[in-house]
Amino acid sequence: MTQEPRLVEVRKNILKQNDVVARELRSEFRRSNVFVVSLVSSPGSGKTAFLEKILTLLRPRYRVAALVGDLATENDALRLARSGAPVKQITTGTLCHLEAAMVRNALQTWDLAQLDFLFIENVGNLVCPSSYDLGENLRLVLTSVTEGEDKPLKYPTIFHSADVALLTKMDLSQAVEFDEPTALANIQAVRPGMQVLRVSAKTGLGMKEFIDFLGSRRAGPREMHVSL
Amino acid sequence: MTQEPRLVEVRKNILKQNDVVARELRSEFRRSNVFVVSLVSSPGSGKTAFLEKILTLLRPRYRVAALVGDLATENDALRLARSGAPVKQITTGTLCHLEAAMVRNALQTWDLAQLDFLFIENVGNLVCPSSYDLGENLRLVLTSVTEGEDKPLKYPTIFHSADVALLTKMDLSQAVEFDEPTALANIQAVRPGMQVLRVSAKTGLGMKEFIDFLGSRRAGPREMHVSL
Repeated sequence: MTQEPRLVEVRKNILKQNDVVARELRSEFRRSNVFVVSLVSSPGSGKTAFLEKILTLLRPRYRVAALVGDLATENDALRLARSGAPVKQITTGTLCHLEAAMVRNALQTWDLAQLDFLFIENVGNLVCPSSYDLGENLRLVLTSVTEGEDKPLKYPTIFHSADVALLTKMDLSQAVEFDEPTALANIQAVRPGMQVLRVSAKTGLGMKEFIDFLGSRRAGPREMHVSL
Repeated sequence: MTQEPRLVEVRKNILKQNDVVARELRSEFRRSNVFVVSLVSSPGSGKTAFLEKILTLLRPRYRVAALVGDLATENDALRLARSGAPVKQITTGTLCHLEAAMVRNALQTWDLAQLDFLFIENVGNLVCPSSYDLGENLRLVLTSVTEGEDKPLKYPTIFHSADVALLTKMDLSQAVEFDEPTALANIQAVRPGMQVLRVSAKTGLGMKEFIDFLGSRRAGPREMHVSL
C-alpha cells in the first residue's frame, strides 16, 4: 500500500489526459452535429439487447451508429450489427472501461457528419467507467430489475456521473419481486431529481418514450456531460 | 495514452506487493486451520443472498464468519449478520476490488483459530478482482441466469482466476429463457474442466450439494489458489 500515493498521482495524470481527449471529441461531435449517447451498467443488465432495439427503431428516421466495448470477443458488435447500423467493437483486454482515446481511434475512419446519433456501449462495469468522460452528450446508467434495488446506494459514483437512469428488464419485475418504489427512492437518495425511465427490450415497454426522449434531447439545447 | 507504460509499471508493483501480503495471509490461514472462500461476480448476481444462506446452513456444524467488500454502505454486512455469524464490512471508496492488505486489516481483531470457514465477498465486479490474490483457499465465480450465457466469453480473466463456477438464481431460469447448455459450453470453452454448480438461494436448489462440497474441500488436501 506504500505505492498508493504514486498510483493516485499517475492515475490523475491519465484522467487529466483523458479529459483533454474527451474535450476534443466533444468539439468534434458538436461540429459534426452528431448526438452521442453512452451506456454504462453492470454485466448482464441488458445494454446490448436494449441498444439493438433502439438502433432498429431509430434507423427509419435517423442515421445511427454504435461503438461497443468489451474485454474480449466481438459478440456484441455482431448482435448490434443485426440492426443494420454500422457498428465497431473496441476490445479493451483487461481494462475495465473505455477511454476517450479508444473512442477517438475507433472513429478515425467514420465520417461523423453523416450521423445523427452515435451510441457508445461501455464495458460492463458499475465502477470503472464513471471516471472517464468520453465527450458524450448524454450518459445513461442502466440497472436491471434482476439486480435488486440497492445498486444505486452501493455504486453511487456511476449514478453521479450519469445523466439519466434506466430500469431495464421490466418484464421480469414480477418474477424477481422487484420493489420499484424502493429502487426509485434509492436512486433519488443518491442523485436527487435524477430522471428515471422504465424499459423492457423484450416487451417493448418504454421504448417509444425513450425514442421520443432522445429525439427531444437531440433537437433541444445540447447538454454537456459534466463529471461530478 | 503516453502515460500507460508508467501506469503499468506502478500497477505491477502494487500487484507484486499484494502477492506478498496474500502469501502472508495464506500462511496465517493455514496455521489457524481456517478454510477461506472468496466470492466474485458482477453486481446483482446474488452473492449476498447466497452467502447469507450458506452461513445460516453452515452455522450448526461449523464456526463461520464473513468479510464483505463494497464501494459504499454497510448494507451487505447487515444482511449477512442476520445469519448470526460475525461479519465485517470493508468499504473501498472508489476502488473496484478488495486487496490482501484490506483483508489483513479487517481481520486484525479476529482470532482466526476460532473459525472453520471464513468467507470473503468481493466488490461486485467481473474485471478488477481477478488480479488480486487474497490468500483464499477457494475462489468462486458466480454468474446468474439473468445475466445471459455469454459472460464467460466476455470476462474470461475472472473465470481463469476462479476455481469453481456457480450458476445462481436457477429459479429464474425459465422466466429468462436461460440456455444452460450454451452457458456451460461457454464456461468450458474459456476454462476446460471447470467445475460448475447450479444453485438457487431462493428455492434452496443445490445448497446441500454446495455445503457437502465445501465440507469435503475443507477436509481434503488443501488446494492453493493459483492465479493463472
